[in-house]
Amino acid sequence: MTIAAKERVLNINTINPLIKNVEYAVRGKLAIRAEEIRSDLEKGQGKYGFDRVVSCNIGNPQQLNQTPITFFRQVASLCDNPDLLKKENLALVSQLYPSDAITRAQTLLKSIGSVGAYSHSQGVPHIRDTVAQFIKERDGGHASDASHIFLTQGASSGVQTLLSMLTENEHSGIMIPIPQYPLYSATLALYGAVPVNYYLDETTGWSLDIAQLTESVTSARKQGTDVKALVIINPGNPTGQCLTAENLKEIITFCYEQRLVLLADEVYQTNIYEPETRPFVSFKKALMDHPSAEVREGVELVSFHSISKGMVGECGRRGGYFECVNLDSQVLDQIYKMSSVSLCPNLHGQILVDLMCNPPRVGEASYESYSNEIKTIYESLRRRSKKLEDVFNKMEGVSCQSAQGSMYLFPQVTLSQKVVDAAAKEGLAPDAYYSHAMLEATGVCVVPGSGFGQKENTWHFRSTFLPEEHLFDQFCSGIEKFHSDFLQKHV
Amino acid sequence: MTIAAKERVLNINTINPLIKNVEYAVRGKLAIRAEEIRSDLEKGQGKYGFDRVVSCNIGNPQQLNQTPITFFRQVASLCDNPDLLKKENLALVSQLYPSDAITRAQTLLKSIGSVGAYSHSQGVPHIRDTVAQFIKERDGGHASDASHIFLTQGASSGVQTLLSMLTENEHSGIMIPIPQYPLYSATLALYGAVPVNYYLDETTGWSLDIAQLTESVTSARKQGTDVKALVIINPGNPTGQCLTAENLKEIITFCYEQRLVLLADEVYQTNIYEPETRPFVSFKKALMDHPSAEVREGVELVSFHSISKGMVGECGRRGGYFECVNLDSQVLDQIYKMSSVSLCPNLHGQILVDLMCNPPRVGEASYESYSNEIKTIYESLRRRSKKLEDVFNKMEGVSCQSAQGSMYLFPQVTLSQKVVDAAAKEGLAPDAYYSHAMLEATGVCVVPGSGFGQKENTWHFRSTFLPEEHLFDQFCSGIEKFHSDFLQKHV
Repeated sequence: MTIAAKERVLNINTINPLIKNVEYAVRGKLAIRAEEIRSDLEKGQGKYGFDRVVSCNIGNPQQLNQTPITFFRQVASLCDNPDLLKKENLALVSQLYPSDAITRAQTLLKSIGSVGAYSHSQGVPHIRDTVAQFIKERDGGHASDASHIFLTQGASSGVQTLLSMLTENEHSGIMIPIPQYPLYSATLALYGAVPVNYYLDETTGWSLDIAQLTESVTSARKQGTDVKALVIINPGNPTGQCLTAENLKEIITFCYEQRLVLLADEVYQTNIYEPETRPFVSFKKALMDHPSAEVREGVELVSFHSISKGMVGECGRRGGYFECVNLDSQVLDQIYKMSSVSLCPNLHGQILVDLMCNPPRVGEASYESYSNEIKTIYESLRRRSKKLEDVFNKMEGVSCQSAQGSMYLFPQVTLSQKVVDAAAKEGLAPDAYYSHAMLEATGVCVVPGSGFGQKENTWHFRSTFLPEEHLFDQFCSGIEKFHSDFLQKHV
Repeated sequence: MTIAAKERVLNINTINPLIKNVEYAVRGKLAIRAEEIRSDLEKGQGKYGFDRVVSCNIGNPQQLNQTPITFFRQVASLCDNPDLLKKENLALVSQLYPSDAITRAQTLLKSIGSVGAYSHSQGVPHIRDTVAQFIKERDGGHASDASHIFLTQGASSGVQTLLSMLTENEHSGIMIPIPQYPLYSATLALYGAVPVNYYLDETTGWSLDIAQLTESVTSARKQGTDVKALVIINPGNPTGQCLTAENLKEIITFCYEQRLVLLADEVYQTNIYEPETRPFVSFKKALMDHPSAEVREGVELVSFHSISKGMVGECGRRGGYFECVNLDSQVLDQIYKMSSVSLCPNLHGQILVDLMCNPPRVGEASYESYSNEIKTIYESLRRRSKKLEDVFNKMEGVSCQSAQGSMYLFPQVTLSQKVVDAAAKEGLAPDAYYSHAMLEATGVCVVPGSGFGQKENTWHFRSTFLPEEHLFDQFCSGIEKFHSDFLQKHV
């Protein structure tokens, strides 16, 4: 007799109920269906009106053939195979590797030992020094303390660590933007904390208004929520806005007045497409530049960065860091303890953090090729962002704010009552219904707006603009055709 | 005015209280002190009677200069730098790399794409197929389902995922051995689940007795604990015992009768030092060989493995997997969902899982060097294990069970009342006091038995036997001298 599922010790009724509440749309139902189609196409099965699945649901540039930075990979491969650095091989190896890649690998290995060894749980000290120096240079000379920097396996794991720390009990609340990146809502659901939503204003380019923040925290506290922290994603995900220095200053003052820890998700800090009018300013710099000493010393800030985004795009390595400013030293000890339970972040991610924060400099052998590669990727991303934005804005009933930063567009789509009814019949949100239809018609996989949160009765989807440039026109026209067919079908 | 620590929003009184309860001795106070000394020695500061710190607190072989497996590193470095696989470079590259390393890298990259791209959240399908094939071969032909295998960032993260799933509420209990690897107690503390202790019997080589398991589960249930799962570490950590097939069968029957999910930590499965009398048998094989079909289909088993241990020792890459057997399909969906929130395990860890599970075969270019490297490391580990065991057993008041497996010895030390009193004065457990004294006298860092749990009023410490063989005699005599001095000082 086979044991029926309901009789299992661990089943859907006995599992940790918080886990059941977790939703993560970026890799949800639609992404699973996309994988099925991809597998069908590989096997030559199924009938589809397209020959490939295009994954625009996730910022995964190298999956869509973005070329990795040559210097980074050269150094990483030398660290992986230190036999190449042996004297007897150097003549051959010098024909394959530039001199600065060899020197950098030697320097890294001197401080790391072996990439196969656990490092310090907080990350290799030498690499944390590199990060501190990077932050100092980025922020106009404000010092950064390497002992307050933690290397992580991607920004996500750092965010999870901090949210876990902040969850004192079931009344603990964390302010998150709507729309938001669902890592936040998923993690809060897992820890049983209260998401305290604040809305970004689509009509003014997804701007962030202090009045809206104040209203949100006040109302949550009135309802008994112990609001502890504010999450800001800048540049925005999924919304792409890039905040001004003035806005950052207001936000910091708000955190001081409301006694909120500031969690700054700054993983898109180099994905800036309007650098003259909207340059990236870090919250660390804005804090250090704040006119009030009480604010500068009072606001607890944790800033997250990653090797997965920007022009680096090394998602698969899982690397990142967070910097803590004004955190209680006992809290830092607890963060260290929790890092030590997971032993250490993987060394390949750590190495890439070092390289991202300290790339080839003027005069070094790889400088020119490095700069060209970065520039090529950057300009292409900017071109594609503008092109896709135009496509969306020309589509009937669609409006799309421009991406000042990040890797995404988040257009609003007007959907008819017929769509709403058809979606309800299938138990889907209207935007999920629309996105499923897009996948089945074009092979393009996006994420429905309901996965990020949106103003009631508005519908959106998030799409990356990462498909390769030589396929981009075809990609755009596929979406245009789908949209117009979809409208006709649902008049 | 500087804001005092007690005024911080996030401080030791407002932090998640479960985090405060977490203890992780492997990287606790003693390890932090060892880091201080190491840093002093590097800077030429401080006065110590030794010139290096020897980290025996953690199974981190490559930190102590264990050589990585050449073939593994060759393939990994080619995957990292795919330019080396370009036609124009192959002539040069063939002088540096054997043909099978090149072929393997090509195969892996074909299925992975780029190591810089997020993979399937469960791990690259091709690599999961490799794992399934490995399990099948290891377990005498019993099939393994790749769709029930999850690649992870080291075994630890897999264990944490499962313990999180199993924690339905604060009454949920998980059976763990005493002594245990503190990942388990730390994780249960973090999730607020109840550790249900069962004792291993030191007098019979840390054997595992069903009567003891039964007593433990019965008593916990009487006290209202909802005992859900049994953790077995085999080979044992810190205890080194290797269970017989007969014992495994009894344990499985026990889980069936008591309705317990079986979590099998089998990361030391190739660290087997008495293979004739105590070969490693996996729980998966024991389950599939169980005479009762109801048991075979009824017992829910999750087995964990890692690239960090064995002769591979690639700790710093953070790679591993777990295989689920008889798990409810809805539970598998939830595991997948939680994996997707962390996006994917790092690709360098995944690649090493592939290589560990499918090493060079007879007739392939790297087979001979691979086998020799594995054999050399294995025999050296076995020699060192026996040598250190002998040293411990010759020390006054010390008795040490032999390591049938794993990387550790866990000797019992008789400590005088004078030690107990001196330790109490410093607020330390007697074994922590002893271990601190050892570190200060010799530079050898071990872990006090109280970090793993031990029978009341017995004192132990855990030491790896990983110091390099040419330094091993010196390492041993340092400990002997310390111990004899310590006894004299505390008569």
